[in-house]
Amino acid sequence: MRSLLSDLILHRLEKATGNNLHQRLYQALRLAILDASITPGSRLPASRDLAAQLEISRNTVLAAYEQLQAEGYIQTRAGSGTFVNADLPEDGINAEAVPAKHSSSANLGQLSERGAKLLGRTGVAPHQWGAFMPGVPDVTRFPHEIWRKLQNRLNRKLDPRYLSYSRHGGGLALQQALTDYLRVARSVNCTPEQILITAGSHEAIDLLAKVLCDQGDTAWIEEPSYWGIRNILSINGVVMQPIPVDENGMDPPDIAENQTPPRLICVTPSHQYPLGSVMSLARRQRLLSLAVQHGSWIIEDDYDSEFRYSGSPIPALQGLQPDAPVIYIGTFSKTLFPGMRVSYVVLPRGLAAKLKIAHSELYRGGNGLTQLTLAEFIREGHYGAHIRRMRLSYGKRRNALAKMIEQELGKEFLCEFSSAGLHLILALPERIDDVALSAELEQKGVLTRALSGYYMRSTSRRGLILGYGCVDIPQMEAAFNILCACLKQRL
Amino acid sequence: MRSLLSDLILHRLEKATGNNLHQRLYQALRLAILDASITPGSRLPASRDLAAQLEISRNTVLAAYEQLQAEGYIQTRAGSGTFVNADLPEDGINAEAVPAKHSSSANLGQLSERGAKLLGRTGVAPHQWGAFMPGVPDVTRFPHEIWRKLQNRLNRKLDPRYLSYSRHGGGLALQQALTDYLRVARSVNCTPEQILITAGSHEAIDLLAKVLCDQGDTAWIEEPSYWGIRNILSINGVVMQPIPVDENGMDPPDIAENQTPPRLICVTPSHQYPLGSVMSLARRQRLLSLAVQHGSWIIEDDYDSEFRYSGSPIPALQGLQPDAPVIYIGTFSKTLFPGMRVSYVVLPRGLAAKLKIAHSELYRGGNGLTQLTLAEFIREGHYGAHIRRMRLSYGKRRNALAKMIEQELGKEFLCEFSSAGLHLILALPERIDDVALSAELEQKGVLTRALSGYYMRSTSRRGLILGYGCVDIPQMEAAFNILCACLKQRL
Repeated sequence: MRSLLSDLILHRLEKATGNNLHQRLYQALRLAILDASITPGSRLPASRDLAAQLEISRNTVLAAYEQLQAEGYIQTRAGSGTFVNADLPEDGINAEAVPAKHSSSANLGQLSERGAKLLGRTGVAPHQWGAFMPGVPDVTRFPHEIWRKLQNRLNRKLDPRYLSYSRHGGGLALQQALTDYLRVARSVNCTPEQILITAGSHEAIDLLAKVLCDQGDTAWIEEPSYWGIRNILSINGVVMQPIPVDENGMDPPDIAENQTPPRLICVTPSHQYPLGSVMSLARRQRLLSLAVQHGSWIIEDDYDSEFRYSGSPIPALQGLQPDAPVIYIGTFSKTLFPGMRVSYVVLPRGLAAKLKIAHSELYRGGNGLTQLTLAEFIREGHYGAHIRRMRLSYGKRRNALAKMIEQELGKEFLCEFSSAGLHLILALPERIDDVALSAELEQKGVLTRALSGYYMRSTSRRGLILGYGCVDIPQMEAAFNILCACLKQRL
Repeated sequence: MRSLLSDLILHRLEKATGNNLHQRLYQALRLAILDASITPGSRLPASRDLAAQLEISRNTVLAAYEQLQAEGYIQTRAGSGTFVNADLPEDGINAEAVPAKHSSSANLGQLSERGAKLLGRTGVAPHQWGAFMPGVPDVTRFPHEIWRKLQNRLNRKLDPRYLSYSRHGGGLALQQALTDYLRVARSVNCTPEQILITAGSHEAIDLLAKVLCDQGDTAWIEEPSYWGIRNILSINGVVMQPIPVDENGMDPPDIAENQTPPRLICVTPSHQYPLGSVMSLARRQRLLSLAVQHGSWIIEDDYDSEFRYSGSPIPALQGLQPDAPVIYIGTFSKTLFPGMRVSYVVLPRGLAAKLKIAHSELYRGGNGLTQLTLAEFIREGHYGAHIRRMRLSYGKRRNALAKMIEQELGKEFLCEFSSAGLHLILALPERIDDVALSAELEQKGVLTRALSGYYMRSTSRRGLILGYGCVDIPQMEAAFNILCACLKQRL
């Protein structure tokens, strides 16, 4: 079976012009690198594999690779393969390309420029379960029996409205239950009317990018940050400005007189993703006053702060001052299970009615029965109980994993800004290629993510993101042994 | 409570400049009409109501309305109110406005230009249940007991993967069940790998608009067409070219040498929405050859063709020739219930892998248990049985409603291109304002949609779309009596 990359190359190859096959292959690869369909730092297939997949001679592939290497597009690292050079001129990579007009009859099979760019920067992992898949909770511990009984009870007297499209941004019962829960657990101040239920936080971010931003508007995003937000902002034409993060969270820069202020400021203040730092009070206040002054919207993604293992919970930015320009996003993907596809947005008063209508227009909500069941699940205390139970369990797993890292590799390998969430970062020396290491581990059945992939710029830290949510300690130990063996060969 | 329209006006008013309030109000309204935030043909609030909502004097509103009327922006119709003129220069309405740059500190509370435009053209109804809500099936007849038993059985041996994010574009069991069903029922030829499960067809269209089109690319859409597709294409920067529909469906025009061919061609060939015509074989073949020649993708939205009451089922365009450039969209919203939020896309072979990855990146799928249950529901024959049962029932309702129209109003009020789907069109003489009639009926609890709202251009037919899916015959009779009384006053 052909890989996606070789599929892409084959596609470009069919369109390329040139005297002979190796020149056409060279040109197809070069253009794919320049328009970032193949991302900087990514590994090219081995010449033997690419030749087999494209059904051409290996010498042709080698000739094309040699030319690309001579011109500085790619480099070969002994023992690990051929990689796209990470130091390509930044303009050529990050700039939004002006969409080339498709010539007629050649369109077929082609994606749009923005679509091709998305596929050149994919973040979703092919696997979603197993050590150390980050961001996935232990769904086997979800109390199905309680859920099923609630659902059966509600099903008996079900109003047909719950089976139709949703109105008013979701079910009122869930909006009310969330209002109470968020006030107590997250210091979020809102009324049920401010809550919009979405099918996941990606849908929420897509809505905000469309309805609050136009093409070419700027958003500040954290550096490093979650790949998902980058993809969604980018495909909606929003220009991203990466803002560095340190142990106090995002460090908001000054905005000069002649500068266009950001339309959106995307932050994870309770537990920075992926580094884990907590935004300090001074930074929070500064961010709020910048946003008020310049008319920016802050998007606070509070994706997993329910799981905090030491210290007191960090109140949400949303509740820090009345009517703050903050749009708060929360999700049940981490606290219950991702496949439920229920997230929620707490909207500022002035935006709520409009964004609920826009949401209906663009996505049409539904899942009324799930929302009703979830409301009962929260109101009867099962949600809080499940979180407390899982917090204990995840805390133990976290400690066990941290101990493995410290004992087997040393304290310097543990990057620890805070003690929360569902993942740890295994810090690596700069000379270690985290992307190559993660790829090698994946072939051995160990799922990790390379930290450098969370950065937009090439000045990135190296490390592996290790999720401890979805498997128990003995499984983690087995996977960690494989990880150590691979890593130690590179140290 | 302020209406959305007065909210919009208030917003524009705050930004408007002028010597006195009525000039500022005039300016705010004029700009909102010009950028189509207030759509042509729509009714403005009565001066008394707008004055009360904006907390200004009624004379101020009257002065602004008078100026707008003098300049030809609005017109007053005796007994029915003040309306935005439908004959505004077309360029000013349909052209994609160049986004104005937001000035700093004035942003707060503002939507983006594309967001404001969306809210000026909303299509979602505030109610989703009752006579004659179109597009909603009778969810009370859904076999809950069978569904619950299936779900309980599957839940007992549930793999944690079904509770996590989806991979490969959805659950394989559902993809397989759909492949078999679609081949037999809809003459769709595909393998399970070509099927992508989405959370509703809006998500599917959003994905296609993003990944197959760039800003400024053209899509052909039917005139009239479903409001949802227009909103989604528009907010993704796709320029729409409305193509007239007759009793043989969309009539594809020639594409001249110097013309840019459409990137997408959006059609409802089995049952045109909302007029109901079936695309003729000659038109289908012409459309396919145009698409192949010019490299366009045809999007075939087969939203309710399961319900056909006479004649044989119309095979899908997708299966008409091997490897046709057709992307087929189907949904369970009409056959089971809309709140389920499960639709599916049959992708051409060359696009399948890429679009599945793009879907994961942008929306992350899930709902694994629902998909698994649905697969069993189809495989065990419950799906086919439910469709047959409902087809009988809807057929009776349709006949009853058609008879009411013929007997009470006359045959000329029945627009009948075909005998399928979940709605009928009550055709109205051109002098009747269908928007105003529909608004009056809504206030009396009778839900309809004005046919003219489905047109992009002002040369539209008048009529009311009457759904007969969601209520029984006695309820329809009661609602029809109210409708007749209102209509007869205008005839």
